[in-house]
Amino acid sequence: VNPALADLNGLFAGRLLVDEADKAPFLVDWLKLKGDAIAVAMPETTEGVAAILRWAARTGTAIAPQGGNTGLAGGSVPQLARPTVLLSLKRLNRIRSVDAVNSTLVAEAGCLLADVQAAAAEAARLFPLSLAAEGSCTIGGNLACNAGGTAVLRYGTARELCLGLEVVTADGEIWNGLNALRKNNTGYSLRDLFIGSEGTLGVITAAVLKLFPKPRARATAMVGLDRVEQAALLLAALQSRSGGAITTFELMSARALALVLAHLRQTQSPVESACRWYLLIEVSDQQGEDAAAATLEEGLAAALESGQIKDAVIASSLSQAASFWRLRESMNEAQAATGKVVKHDVSLPISALDPFIAGVDAALSAQFPDARTIIYGHLGDGNLHLSALPPERDPHRLQPRDGALINRIVHDLVHEYGGAISAEHGIGTLRRDELPRYKSEIELKLMRRIKTALDPDWTLNPGVLLAPPDWPTDRSF
Amino acid sequence: VNPALADLNGLFAGRLLVDEADKAPFLVDWLKLKGDAIAVAMPETTEGVAAILRWAARTGTAIAPQGGNTGLAGGSVPQLARPTVLLSLKRLNRIRSVDAVNSTLVAEAGCLLADVQAAAAEAARLFPLSLAAEGSCTIGGNLACNAGGTAVLRYGTARELCLGLEVVTADGEIWNGLNALRKNNTGYSLRDLFIGSEGTLGVITAAVLKLFPKPRARATAMVGLDRVEQAALLLAALQSRSGGAITTFELMSARALALVLAHLRQTQSPVESACRWYLLIEVSDQQGEDAAAATLEEGLAAALESGQIKDAVIASSLSQAASFWRLRESMNEAQAATGKVVKHDVSLPISALDPFIAGVDAALSAQFPDARTIIYGHLGDGNLHLSALPPERDPHRLQPRDGALINRIVHDLVHEYGGAISAEHGIGTLRRDELPRYKSEIELKLMRRIKTALDPDWTLNPGVLLAPPDWPTDRSF
Repeated sequence: VNPALADLNGLFAGRLLVDEADKAPFLVDWLKLKGDAIAVAMPETTEGVAAILRWAARTGTAIAPQGGNTGLAGGSVPQLARPTVLLSLKRLNRIRSVDAVNSTLVAEAGCLLADVQAAAAEAARLFPLSLAAEGSCTIGGNLACNAGGTAVLRYGTARELCLGLEVVTADGEIWNGLNALRKNNTGYSLRDLFIGSEGTLGVITAAVLKLFPKPRARATAMVGLDRVEQAALLLAALQSRSGGAITTFELMSARALALVLAHLRQTQSPVESACRWYLLIEVSDQQGEDAAAATLEEGLAAALESGQIKDAVIASSLSQAASFWRLRESMNEAQAATGKVVKHDVSLPISALDPFIAGVDAALSAQFPDARTIIYGHLGDGNLHLSALPPERDPHRLQPRDGALINRIVHDLVHEYGGAISAEHGIGTLRRDELPRYKSEIELKLMRRIKTALDPDWTLNPGVLLAPPDWPTDRSF
Repeated sequence: VNPALADLNGLFAGRLLVDEADKAPFLVDWLKLKGDAIAVAMPETTEGVAAILRWAARTGTAIAPQGGNTGLAGGSVPQLARPTVLLSLKRLNRIRSVDAVNSTLVAEAGCLLADVQAAAAEAARLFPLSLAAEGSCTIGGNLACNAGGTAVLRYGTARELCLGLEVVTADGEIWNGLNALRKNNTGYSLRDLFIGSEGTLGVITAAVLKLFPKPRARATAMVGLDRVEQAALLLAALQSRSGGAITTFELMSARALALVLAHLRQTQSPVESACRWYLLIEVSDQQGEDAAAATLEEGLAAALESGQIKDAVIASSLSQAASFWRLRESMNEAQAATGKVVKHDVSLPISALDPFIAGVDAALSAQFPDARTIIYGHLGDGNLHLSALPPERDPHRLQPRDGALINRIVHDLVHEYGGAISAEHGIGTLRRDELPRYKSEIELKLMRRIKTALDPDWTLNPGVLLAPPDWPTDRSF
């Protein structure tokens, strides 16, 4: 046991895990990436977090904050050269208050996203952030990584859903920025600086979250069409028709849909015509089922008539709608079953999706003629998940070196079309060493200056997002 | 002429004004606050802005960026101890591009807000930011101050309407952050740090702005009721009924309405019943006039029936709707006609508006029994404009000392109820010395660290928002 740990246990209310077996579940992430820590501290209060950070500053120990450990960028498990305490926020998990009139609630960082959703629902409100990991991810992690998910098109990312924060600084001081205000022009937006900073500038301990009216009704459709360009125009037309009530506009390539259909052992697609692309579209409405269905029916009828789309099916029951959603939601599982997959989470201007996809298809098939590329994602947000699957008969064909080359091809093209190499997953350790290729020197310099201003000793998550100044510059993970 | 100016003229394309008469219009703001500058520089390109900032860093000259000079917080005219060049962005005013498919446009900082709105309209889109000064304020100033206005409830503040920025740093380097992406999790949100920083961290030279579908129809109503608490409940009910399509929810106290009616020489209020409070409500709809009117009619009928409101009039024509709006829009003019007015721009949680108003009424009438307090503002955003007018027969009665005391009473109560002393106007120089009373030391410390990290010599707008470290701490304007 590290000698610096001796006095840590008494400094806060909560648990301190030092046995390997106790620590183990915190030290492997969803990508099976492993990390190490001298201890796992689980404080129960904000004051406890502050005490741990003051101790860390005193002893020169690094701190790796962790929420639900569901991140997909290697940012949630520490892989550090310095002795590190993993700071789990899971026991800091109270809903502090709900204000139905102001349509806000205050949740502690360790609240599961699903519990925040439930607290909102109890007050007859909606907390719209929704993603696959919602049963195990925490709201603190969602904010630290500015989570996206399936409701961004209508409600925005985690950033847009947060009015105020409570944060413990690297010095172990508590900043109470828990204001529940829609407008507040009284200085720099520290809130927005901490959101999306991946635990490198401070530890988020609580947040004021925005709630919304619950939609009364939904209408869901699957659409088939041949060009992504037409999908972008359909989105604009439906947005205009519905006044922005489109809540879902998800894209799947024909190969992506075929993969998931095969995996689910369903015999046929809900859309009869064979198309190159499919869309899952959902409209919310406050008036009721009929109004929701009418918006979608009229919009899709116009698109069929003009030849913008080839086919469309509107779900006639909740269970049919659920079966459409199941196709989208099984995408990860279906990929995992094919072997080692090289995944991407990129964003582009919506107007650039069509040429980008053509370019990336051509470049990848030139280099890897038998790898299968599937594309799916949140078209309404310009966010594509692009995966290279191994050849069907050779699941181990794609080697790590191939992965790096595929990344390079995809991300170079993303950059060329004005996109971002991480849309919603963040940089973590996985994409850190790619950043200098795609960000300007001036942007990296500004980021480093801010990091150094708020965490001069690089105590918080060193090596996540940015490499500490004392690391060799050619270090790669 | 300051000797350091000698070489500035040749460094950039644009104008350099040094004659007092030429400089004069830039050196008085809308509050009649006067400032001074050794020159006014009007570059035409981002590179020109960068050259001026490099010159300033070299010569130790302070730079005061200015847009339309319509700010209401004393932040747009330099009142500095150091020699200062006023940097007007007005000639940097091109719309660089419009992307209708991505629903974005790129505007340079000096574009008038009205010109940005017009460029969006030409592409059959809406740029929703709207405020009284839109014919003379610039989009760069709107972003630097995170402007609000009358469409925040539905579309958000300037912050929410911006996807990317181009900024010249204090060193005179150009950061190209002009991405047009809905999702981008690749590092600290520099964009959000520059937005609302009032020109103290960098000079915004261009921005990517979000566009929206144009609403097809609007319905407008004036409502009378007796309690602000009921207004907050009505807002929630209408939001729920309309799916968030309420675009305006403005509050006026009976005294505020009476003042403006008297000023406009109209004989009667559109609402027949005498009420303590009035609301101007507008709903947008994509379906058409009938749907918009139906949402409002049904919602207001339910509120009348339950006794939540006392009276309601829905505009039966565009000209009647315009006459409702004129009441709201004439509020500033009507106040100016009464003499010296002490104004506030505060925000509160919507659930706290009712007790806050009761508290502030009691406190102000105890101290100033014959001052008249009027309240109006954007109830949907929790944003109140509260003004103390002088007694009717003695327009000079309220003295500067009284103003300071009224500020103190109002802002102390705002703070007590979890509000902000500036909702949309910013801090500037007007509220700077009040900040330490209402912000925690830790928040001010974090702000100073960020300022020092990005502008170590305090070249940009020193004295706006934060007092430079070498100023005596008890300095007050």
